[in-house]
Amino acid sequence: MSPREAGRVSRVVVTPVAFRDPPLLNVVGVHQPYVLRAIVQVHTDAGLVGLGETYADQSHLDRLGAVAAALPGADVFDLNALRATVVKTLGEGTGGAGASFGGMLEVSSAVDTVVAPFEVALLDLQGRALGRPVSDLLGGAVRDRVPFSGYLFYKWAGHPGHDDDSWGEGRTPEQLVAQARRMVDEYGFTALKLKGGVYEPRHEYETVEALAEAFPGHALRIDPNGAWTVETSVQAAERLSGVLEYLEDPTPGIPGMSEVSRQTSIPLATNMCVIAFEHLKPAVAADAVQVVLSDHHLWGGLRRSALLGGICETFGLGLSMHSNSHLGVSLAAMTHLAAATPNLTYACDTHYPWKTEEVVKPGALEFRDGSVAVPTGPGLGVELDEDALAALHEQYVACGQRGREDTAYMRSIVPGFTPNTARW
Amino acid sequence: MSPREAGRVSRVVVTPVAFRDPPLLNVVGVHQPYVLRAIVQVHTDAGLVGLGETYADQSHLDRLGAVAAALPGADVFDLNALRATVVKTLGEGTGGAGASFGGMLEVSSAVDTVVAPFEVALLDLQGRALGRPVSDLLGGAVRDRVPFSGYLFYKWAGHPGHDDDSWGEGRTPEQLVAQARRMVDEYGFTALKLKGGVYEPRHEYETVEALAEAFPGHALRIDPNGAWTVETSVQAAERLSGVLEYLEDPTPGIPGMSEVSRQTSIPLATNMCVIAFEHLKPAVAADAVQVVLSDHHLWGGLRRSALLGGICETFGLGLSMHSNSHLGVSLAAMTHLAAATPNLTYACDTHYPWKTEEVVKPGALEFRDGSVAVPTGPGLGVELDEDALAALHEQYVACGQRGREDTAYMRSIVPGFTPNTARW
Repeated sequence: MSPREAGRVSRVVVTPVAFRDPPLLNVVGVHQPYVLRAIVQVHTDAGLVGLGETYADQSHLDRLGAVAAALPGADVFDLNALRATVVKTLGEGTGGAGASFGGMLEVSSAVDTVVAPFEVALLDLQGRALGRPVSDLLGGAVRDRVPFSGYLFYKWAGHPGHDDDSWGEGRTPEQLVAQARRMVDEYGFTALKLKGGVYEPRHEYETVEALAEAFPGHALRIDPNGAWTVETSVQAAERLSGVLEYLEDPTPGIPGMSEVSRQTSIPLATNMCVIAFEHLKPAVAADAVQVVLSDHHLWGGLRRSALLGGICETFGLGLSMHSNSHLGVSLAAMTHLAAATPNLTYACDTHYPWKTEEVVKPGALEFRDGSVAVPTGPGLGVELDEDALAALHEQYVACGQRGREDTAYMRSIVPGFTPNTARW
Repeated sequence: MSPREAGRVSRVVVTPVAFRDPPLLNVVGVHQPYVLRAIVQVHTDAGLVGLGETYADQSHLDRLGAVAAALPGADVFDLNALRATVVKTLGEGTGGAGASFGGMLEVSSAVDTVVAPFEVALLDLQGRALGRPVSDLLGGAVRDRVPFSGYLFYKWAGHPGHDDDSWGEGRTPEQLVAQARRMVDEYGFTALKLKGGVYEPRHEYETVEALAEAFPGHALRIDPNGAWTVETSVQAAERLSGVLEYLEDPTPGIPGMSEVSRQTSIPLATNMCVIAFEHLKPAVAADAVQVVLSDHHLWGGLRRSALLGGICETFGLGLSMHSNSHLGVSLAAMTHLAAATPNLTYACDTHYPWKTEEVVKPGALEFRDGSVAVPTGPGLGVELDEDALAALHEQYVACGQRGREDTAYMRSIVPGFTPNTARW
């Protein structure tokens, strides 16, 4: 494709969608029947459309809408102006709180989470105009394929009141090995991550050990989302040190992680105590973590995530990638970013296998041998399926969910449930 | 200009040039009669030419030549591949030593200094193909004009054996005030930097104080390039704290700077103890400096300098910009970088006023009110004057200089001279 004018932003459409999700368990509760996401379409007066994807909690949608209204006329190359527009639009009143993550995380400023989907859409537009993949705009792909990890969850057989899903119950080590087997067979993953923080630690250690026995040579991780005390975390690190490539967020907070780090040699990873640029200086000073999980949705887009990558390289930290439940626009963005980040040497997390619905046209992103080929076409390399988008938007309207509420949903089924944070 | 294909690298020409330089004094000696620079021209098979500029010590020229020979066929968007090519070309044997800076600095790896001019040329090519200024490729200009500082030097009236230059002697505070007056009158600078480390400290303090009195409201800096002990540095900080916006490299090394920092409140800046990414972690840990002077020639180009900017923002460090003697290609690159770096809030250093010869066509870069308007045309926005390039290359051939040797040149005039590093 020959290069052409990108044009200026003429119209921005933010479409909330809902897609079905299994009852995946975590430290704060259980996934609701639907995942909410927002699909951002940025149109230009040159007839191009760029895509982005993000969270869709109501407060986040309100902010996205305000920015969408302020963007027409914007230069698609001026990412600094986009950021300034977001800062100005959010103002002081709404800048103090970020998107919510099922009660698990709060970020101190919404700026980066609001910038992200628009930044991705502008990079998509730049790439479409130039006839270049987004990875080229990030410095060029250093790998043709991006490895992802199989993301294992303890889970119920089905949402209460509904039929069992195709994965069935995931409670015992044997059931988790079977879950992993299916993922490995279908996707070819060579790295496996277990979401923990659900059962008492010994049960989760035994699950990891069963996985290690069933998948020798696979890279293994467990992420209890801060369910453990420092003492338990140290015990876990000792027991699992020969089995795990890293231990993710065993205990909450930089001071706790730092204490665990001091007493163990296994690399500690995080997507909880370092989820914004402001956390990097204290985390480095405390030597709290050895691996940071990037996430362009949280860290302000692809260019800012590349900055995070450079910071990790400079300060001797490893780099991996976090995932929330997502659709194909995000998978494309994650793949381009990972491809162009030389020091992103761990397999990236993805919830992709848990998903049965999609908004992008099939064929652009396929898993093979646990990895996704980096799209080489212009921009992100994915196109929206307008019918699918409309259907998932109708599902959003009908489902009644307007935020992620893992704890509230859990309590509707298990009255009196309290999050397991630092419980054991 | 409509976007067009950038093409692939077809040919790379590295041309060493020499331009006349006054006898400017510093901690290690005196500037030689000529400054050596290398002009890089990267041609593509689509008929475009991108420009870069860098040092021209013989060892650096050898490395540039090796990389130039390896580049044909390269994709101008693949900056990661450029870096990989440089790493591979330099190999282990030549990777251990960087460019020299008149004996003042050594960097541990030549990779970033060798990558830099080619990276700038590739960004110039990208911009030319897209019809976009380089600042747009760095995220967009956040300012239309970039402020620079007037760079004052103690100096001899002329090179021995030659007529006095138009600036005359710069030794006494009165002479430096006159030098500053001419710079301010001709360029409009509102920030002034004095290169120190030449005379005993009291004389240099008195010069700063004379400047402060003559230019109230101007931002002032002094850079003795590590000529002082920790004790002297602390005394200087106390004496000049109400006068300086920052104190640059009073004493050598991270431990010394950290000790000065502990005992003073004035911001300490550096282009000596933090000149590569590997220095950032120890400098942050020791709280050694409050301002880092970026320099795209040293730090691996414009994208890596943007990374440095992001690191400074993340770790609470101020950001300014260093200069060696340079021509217009570098001035253009510095201007685009500074324009697109939001937290580069200090006026940038430049040796520009000391220069009487040039390789770029006039008109693209003009100083007004101490600042340069960011070029808005494609790429860097400057064009080579081929006749001027040929003339300065002939001057390079004829002048006999093949490296920067401030100390050796000083010794040829003042036998027995030794650098003033930590002398006082």
